[in-house]
Amino acid sequence: MNGRAILEAVKDGSLSVDDAERMLRAQPFVDLGFAKVDTQRRLRQGASEVIYGASKTPEQSVKIAETLIENGSECVMVTRCNEEVHDLATSHGLRSDYRKDARICIIGDIPERTRDSYVCVLCAGTSDIPVAEEAAVTAEVLGCNVKRTYDAGVAGIHRLLSDADTIMGATAVIVAAGMEGALPSVVGGLVSVPVIAVPTSVGYGASFGGLTALLAMMNSCASTVSVVNIDNGFGAGYIASLIDKRGEV
Amino acid sequence: MNGRAILEAVKDGSLSVDDAERMLRAQPFVDLGFAKVDTQRRLRQGASEVIYGASKTPEQSVKIAETLIENGSECVMVTRCNEEVHDLATSHGLRSDYRKDARICIIGDIPERTRDSYVCVLCAGTSDIPVAEEAAVTAEVLGCNVKRTYDAGVAGIHRLLSDADTIMGATAVIVAAGMEGALPSVVGGLVSVPVIAVPTSVGYGASFGGLTALLAMMNSCASTVSVVNIDNGFGAGYIASLIDKRGEV
Amino acid sequence: MNGRAILEAVKDGSLSVDDAERMLRAQPFVDLGFAKVDTQRRLRQGASEVIYGASKTPEQSVKIAETLIENGSECVMVTRCNEEVHDLATSHGLRSDYRKDARICIIGDIPERTRDSYVCVLCAGTSDIPVAEEAAVTAEVLGCNVKRTYDAGVAGIHRLLSDADTIMGATAVIVAAGMEGALPSVVGGLVSVPVIAVPTSVGYGASFGGLTALLAMMNSCASTVSVVNIDNGFGAGYIASLIDKRGEV
Amino acid sequence: MNGRAILEAVKDGSLSVDDAERMLRAQPFVDLGFAKVDTQRRLRQGASEVIYGASKTPEQSVKIAETLIENGSECVMVTRCNEEVHDLATSHGLRSDYRKDARICIIGDIPERTRDSYVCVLCAGTSDIPVAEEAAVTAEVLGCNVKRTYDAGVAGIHRLLSDADTIMGATAVIVAAGMEGALPSVVGGLVSVPVIAVPTSVGYGASFGGLTALLAMMNSCASTVSVVNIDNGFGAGYIASLIDKRGEV
Amino acid sequence: MNGRAILEAVKDGSLSVDDAERMLRAQPFVDLGFAKVDTQRRLRQGASEVIYGASKTPEQSVKIAETLIENGSECVMVTRCNEEVHDLATSHGLRSDYRKDARICIIGDIPERTRDSYVCVLCAGTSDIPVAEEAAVTAEVLGCNVKRTYDAGVAGIHRLLSDADTIMGATAVIVAAGMEGALPSVVGGLVSVPVIAVPTSVGYGASFGGLTALLAMMNSCASTVSVVNIDNGFGAGYIASLIDKRGEV
Amino acid sequence: MNGRAILEAVKDGSLSVDDAERMLRAQPFVDLGFAKVDTQRRLRQGASEVIYGASKTPEQSVKIAETLIENGSECVMVTRCNEEVHDLATSHGLRSDYRKDARICIIGDIPERTRDSYVCVLCAGTSDIPVAEEAAVTAEVLGCNVKRTYDAGVAGIHRLLSDADTIMGATAVIVAAGMEGALPSVVGGLVSVPVIAVPTSVGYGASFGGLTALLAMMNSCASTVSVVNIDNGFGAGYIASLIDKRGEV
Amino acid sequence: MNGRAILEAVKDGSLSVDDAERMLRAQPFVDLGFAKVDTQRRLRQGASEVIYGASKTPEQSVKIAETLIENGSECVMVTRCNEEVHDLATSHGLRSDYRKDARICIIGDIPERTRDSYVCVLCAGTSDIPVAEEAAVTAEVLGCNVKRTYDAGVAGIHRLLSDADTIMGATAVIVAAGMEGALPSVVGGLVSVPVIAVPTSVGYGASFGGLTALLAMMNSCASTVSVVNIDNGFGAGYIASLIDKRGEV
Amino acid sequence: MNGRAILEAVKDGSLSVDDAERMLRAQPFVDLGFAKVDTQRRLRQGASEVIYGASKTPEQSVKIAETLIENGSECVMVTRCNEEVHDLATSHGLRSDYRKDARICIIGDIPERTRDSYVCVLCAGTSDIPVAEEAAVTAEVLGCNVKRTYDAGVAGIHRLLSDADTIMGATAVIVAAGMEGALPSVVGGLVSVPVIAVPTSVGYGASFGGLTALLAMMNSCASTVSVVNIDNGFGAGYIASLIDKRGEV
Repeated sequence: MNGRAILEAVKDGSLSVDDAERMLRAQPFVDLGFAKVDTQRRLRQGASEVIYGASKTPEQSVKIAETLIENGSECVMVTRCNEEVHDLATSHGLRSDYRKDARICIIGDIPERTRDSYVCVLCAGTSDIPVAEEAAVTAEVLGCNVKRTYDAGVAGIHRLLSDADTIMGATAVIVAAGMEGALPSVVGGLVSVPVIAVPTSVGYGASFGGLTALLAMMNSCASTVSVVNIDNGFGAGYIASLIDKRGEV
Repeated sequence: MNGRAILEAVKDGSLSVDDAERMLRAQPFVDLGFAKVDTQRRLRQGASEVIYGASKTPEQSVKIAETLIENGSECVMVTRCNEEVHDLATSHGLRSDYRKDARICIIGDIPERTRDSYVCVLCAGTSDIPVAEEAAVTAEVLGCNVKRTYDAGVAGIHRLLSDADTIMGATAVIVAAGMEGALPSVVGGLVSVPVIAVPTSVGYGASFGGLTALLAMMNSCASTVSVVNIDNGFGAGYIASLIDKRGEV
Repeated sequence: MNGRAILEAVKDGSLSVDDAERMLRAQPFVDLGFAKVDTQRRLRQGASEVIYGASKTPEQSVKIAETLIENGSECVMVTRCNEEVHDLATSHGLRSDYRKDARICIIGDIPERTRDSYVCVLCAGTSDIPVAEEAAVTAEVLGCNVKRTYDAGVAGIHRLLSDADTIMGATAVIVAAGMEGALPSVVGGLVSVPVIAVPTSVGYGASFGGLTALLAMMNSCASTVSVVNIDNGFGAGYIASLIDKRGEV
Repeated sequence: MNGRAILEAVKDGSLSVDDAERMLRAQPFVDLGFAKVDTQRRLRQGASEVIYGASKTPEQSVKIAETLIENGSECVMVTRCNEEVHDLATSHGLRSDYRKDARICIIGDIPERTRDSYVCVLCAGTSDIPVAEEAAVTAEVLGCNVKRTYDAGVAGIHRLLSDADTIMGATAVIVAAGMEGALPSVVGGLVSVPVIAVPTSVGYGASFGGLTALLAMMNSCASTVSVVNIDNGFGAGYIASLIDKRGEV
Repeated sequence: MNGRAILEAVKDGSLSVDDAERMLRAQPFVDLGFAKVDTQRRLRQGASEVIYGASKTPEQSVKIAETLIENGSECVMVTRCNEEVHDLATSHGLRSDYRKDARICIIGDIPERTRDSYVCVLCAGTSDIPVAEEAAVTAEVLGCNVKRTYDAGVAGIHRLLSDADTIMGATAVIVAAGMEGALPSVVGGLVSVPVIAVPTSVGYGASFGGLTALLAMMNSCASTVSVVNIDNGFGAGYIASLIDKRGEV
Repeated sequence: MNGRAILEAVKDGSLSVDDAERMLRAQPFVDLGFAKVDTQRRLRQGASEVIYGASKTPEQSVKIAETLIENGSECVMVTRCNEEVHDLATSHGLRSDYRKDARICIIGDIPERTRDSYVCVLCAGTSDIPVAEEAAVTAEVLGCNVKRTYDAGVAGIHRLLSDADTIMGATAVIVAAGMEGALPSVVGGLVSVPVIAVPTSVGYGASFGGLTALLAMMNSCASTVSVVNIDNGFGAGYIASLIDKRGEV
Repeated sequence: MNGRAILEAVKDGSLSVDDAERMLRAQPFVDLGFAKVDTQRRLRQGASEVIYGASKTPEQSVKIAETLIENGSECVMVTRCNEEVHDLATSHGLRSDYRKDARICIIGDIPERTRDSYVCVLCAGTSDIPVAEEAAVTAEVLGCNVKRTYDAGVAGIHRLLSDADTIMGATAVIVAAGMEGALPSVVGGLVSVPVIAVPTSVGYGASFGGLTALLAMMNSCASTVSVVNIDNGFGAGYIASLIDKRGEV
Repeated sequence: MNGRAILEAVKDGSLSVDDAERMLRAQPFVDLGFAKVDTQRRLRQGASEVIYGASKTPEQSVKIAETLIENGSECVMVTRCNEEVHDLATSHGLRSDYRKDARICIIGDIPERTRDSYVCVLCAGTSDIPVAEEAAVTAEVLGCNVKRTYDAGVAGIHRLLSDADTIMGATAVIVAAGMEGALPSVVGGLVSVPVIAVPTSVGYGASFGGLTALLAMMNSCASTVSVVNIDNGFGAGYIASLIDKRGEV
């Protein structure tokens, strides 16, 4: 019985005021109109759901995915997982696609893309590719077209500039970079769309597991840059997808 | 002579290949189509420009504003300035509006808003208001409608929830918070649009001038949250405006 | 109209279900039973209220205090304020008591203490006294008896031990210490009641404004010790008062 | 011969002043009335004792437990231990109960609870459960009733609010949280009893092994919150038990 | 009545056992033989006492000094004070000597030195001299001969080496250095006596107020080096005096 | 078709202005004269190229080296690799030389040195040798003569001074040091050529993986010292080679 | 009497071996051939000397300068000084030139430049100019030609590229940058000469007084970059001058 | 030929001035009287030598020890080594004694102690014993008598006080403590001899591998305390032995 139903029952006398008061307190606020409160845990982008694989066994991940699909989800994404999840899903008769670089297993059907717009994902060096791919695949599963420009470090700035048109045409740009974390600033100066910077834990010595890149990105001289946690490719892909679909409705 | 003009001149023989080659190298890339490269420094959102007032004398700020307006800008925003800029602008016969809380002086006419959408700006405590206002006024000058929910700290969570409908209806949400920096996480769990978190330097002791809030925001358990520099209300307002107008063209 | 009143009105038909649903959403959750949600901002310990004076003008502080007392508060405490608040309160005809060491102005009547139990406040050096006093006066205004043992640093451990009986008889012990922050561990080994440690910003060089004391206290080998923010005497006094009155009801 | 006995012997001449002086110096201060000095190492809460298992072999832990029980202890708790301790204790004919989540082995009989009051233990995510359970089981062994509310992260605030009545009825609330460490602030705003915050080392990137959560909790805007060391569930459970039994005597 | 006197009184019946027991507990442990417990606060080196001037008014400092001298102290040292203390002491008819560089005022008569041994004080740059002088004057007032080698930074290593004989002949060496804090390591390699390193807050940028020097000194490759707090010249001088007089008794 | 070729084609009419404009934008800036933009990735010092072996399989490293040599490179250096690379290169019929201490495999022929000048490489302790050797071998492969002075820690300063003539005669000096990182300052005071300091991760406790050495080196009192990342021997060797060959052309 | 003179005196019998041995030990090593040991303190580049003005009164600075010039110095540079030094020098009849941006006063005649080569000095923003100018003027006084490219931040990368030819033609490049400190990496990718990076304390929030820029620069992906202390323009200019004159002799 | 011999040769004409000058420069400074420069590397305390075992193979350690003993050393101490060194030494026919707790192997004969004085070594918890033992055994091998007081943490302060007489009678006190690092302050208040504090890496969470203990010790309110690196028991034992033997000559 949701909030309205309770009120109706009070109105027609089938529910006492006392009971109604108790019920209103006890149940999820969702019934009072806060339906979106639950959005965070069930990502209803397109028709996809997300399982954070790092803290689950392959069995747990696949079991949850299976249940979701049985209940109507078209596509379930398991992040930070290894190939075992894929093998197990396949052996359960599920359609499964494992993206090794991204460490993401996609179970079910990736929703078709209905927009022409695209998100651009860049990274500075080859070691940053796993984080960049996590972002790119996340955005794809959430319904975005994605264009990638990898290995475009600032010490070889011409490589970045040669892709400038592509970058400037995106609705949002994700930039993954470790070491000195300079790439988002350069990109942020090229584009007039939001740049989501992802510091990576790539580097050694004074890179401090990504802290240096994180701090550098926070201090970007480009006003278009905001930052997510170290190696948080998923978060970047998720935010970019929210921006990309902004023009939709 | 821009890139095309140079090519035309080469074609008609009025320019030698040697001279053309030298000219192409020497001049700003803008002529080769990288017009947007310059976007960062001249914010052509609506018809507004931005002057960073903190590192300039009132005279310098007003002089630059005057020149921009004489050259066709409708509206110039001077950030991090005091009331002197406003007084001086007025004495120069410029239309000027000083927003004390935001420390922003708006010279010229704020562009009319043509969108129905709005950006929501929240802050945790009254001490965070200057940063929140810098974000809010920035977004307004850049053409956005803005709705404010101030003093909605997590230790009085009901205040936040009572504004939940407003918050959930925005195209982007800016959250300024100091101390433990928890508000963006709570908000990020409520909404399915990008949340731009601004750590503020409000606090004492182990707040370390905003570092604690910054780190907490980076670790947000809500995937919708990205972060800008401590006290960087301008950046947050700017990014939010980019997202808000995304649906426009 | 609170939650129950709304339900009654729905029941007797004076309120439509639609309007009731809207009203339930719009109003503070307090009406649905979350009365204590508001506790944080209005500290109803005994009959006292608290105003954080640091971010207010004396005029603002006194105005708020006056209003609260006119509305039935017996006692209002203004923290982190200077003597101006006291002078202004007195000139408004309010009964006022300024505790210089604690930087607290007490307006109205401190509630009588009805318990025999007491809270013990210790500090390591004379420079820690302001923080210790903020804690002690806070606890007193919130209805506790307080016993003080000041200047009991660990480098003169006999001073502490000579007060051991007093310390061991308290319901809660507050320990303020800067520099190496060792006192809470020693005290925590003496007593079997909660010890609330307050790192102070006293020290120089590698004390880093209290961070060293804070970290040392976090690592206390005594299991009875928990820690509040640097210089947060108010918080410590508040928590101690909650523990002290625990046995009351 | 304790302090009084020594004095009596001096009085009746059976002990010389010289010998008495030497004896007073040499013996534990406990004889001079500091009996509780020893409390820290032998936790006489109910009738339970605690062994820190992390720095001991299973054999050592079980040997100590056996000796304690032979000497009259009803219940001995071994913390941070694995199942080997349990197996070994059982093979020694000891009644043993292993709590896997809490990594605690309880040897002997948990004391019956004689109070109606209860302690509430919350945690933000499933990864925080081991720390929360260490706190919960510790409090139980020390004689408290415990109610648990797990997986109540701030990004899904309604889950927390739906348990608000339970939380508000406790005598003390323990909150374990990693990542941004925001949960204690939200809880601290709901209740008017002490909140003991336990930062956990859960997180990645800029969580720095729990430091971010620790700093955030230190800066809590709720005055009811004090903090213990990262992952220190035992300390939190111990302090909560002290508060819970405060009303007893 | 000290500990022995109490025992004698019990013996001769002039004091009851009850009263004796209470008195033993109440009074300073000094009477039970812990006379040195008090050493820290009353430095009985030679016949000198120390007042920490930084947290006292000139009036307070002089008043304390006066009282000490009236009660038999030959010499009182006021540290971290300005010339006002000296002027005030002189106007009170006290013999006073102000050491400007060391910020120390010596009231009374410096004890004559009866040892031939000496302490050596070095510093790296002219900006380190105040800290070095605080150490040197402290050691002198505490009865040591002191030899100074200033401005002997490692970037001009020959200056240090030319004083090598002097340095090697000391009973203890104090080295004050800011910036990279390298001098103690070099000195520690030259001598076979304890080297007390004092990091100073001299430097800029990445010197972090002396933290860099402190950390460098902690990592000294010379095994003879131990470290005191940043700018703690007094502590270094005090420890050196303890070592210097070691051979005395 | 490079930039000039495009212009020529426009001039002779074989290329339209439109196509020329598009081509100028699309192709690498190298064609417009920024040939050196690419320098970073292909180190054309003498005739050597560099492969960063740490992030590649031996197979990948050798394959790249083989291709480069087939395309005319005389010498290819694989850094941070183990002996497998050497064995594999040899089995491919390549001339290969593995420098174990430096963890560098040199494939092909080290270019002959044509300069009399030399670079000097120092290190403080035997544990710093791998970093020093990485620097030394890098400089050698890039065409420099190298003189080594190892195990010259500041705590045995005479060892350093006995090599002073050698050190002072170099065109650039590389100094690798961990722990307190003092050696570059001492060396920087001896020479009037650039000193490139390399902090190493050698040490324990408060050395923090090289951070202490890094900070100490940044604060060097010698103006000749600049610093590269922790353990970055390659970078130091590369910069030194640039300085050494400065006098060449 | 220098080392040689001592030996001559021993040879001709005018000095005993004992006295000679003592004298050799006592005097500066400079006489034994380590003349360059003293180089650090007396910068004999061209014919210029340097006085660090920050820790001296104008009177002291001018007095030293006057003495140096009377003793044959052609040019003395006073760093980190204000205009008072210039006024005082002029009033003493000295030829003086005050460079306001660089905070350097040049007393005497800047040596003529005899090389064609030049050093390039870049900075990211207008706020970085004082540090850049300190570097540039230092290099000029030490005999270098200097070319400046200011306000070339990475967020407007085309400005940098348009000066690429100038930058690529230098013998050494100095790059001063605050905030994210990204510029040196971009420049380091363009050139094949040493890049000396100077982090500046420009920025706010998470720039931590230049620490973020410093760390970012240490992690530069360009192998040509080494770093000096925050705001250390003088050091950068000095090192660049050493590299520039490398080709001279 | 040492310095004096050179001078004699010049005097009698058998050596030219030119050659003498060159020779003086070339040879170790030891010949000029800096014999003690070498002290650091060869610890001639009593007749013992030290080998740092951590960076050597057992074979290397034993080989060095064997050589030293063949050349007249009575006793060689190998630190941070495992039992293999002992076994190997024994198999080489060397007298060997392995101290497991201290991780030290003593090869040869510990010198007899000729002093009555003693050094006292304390530690806070059982986990600190390895570091304390490293200090204690080092001091013993270097000729000191050592008295140990272990497991004397500040949370059970009476245990420390019951050993007060022993502690107060030492010539130097070493205190090893992890966690909050409070013990040295308490001890420093009891004694009037130098206290050498050794932070240990014992602890978890916010102990940061010993950094918290280190910082706490640096801030000790007792003036007798100086600090060595984390876990540096050897250094503490070495310094204590220097102090202990101070009274000897």
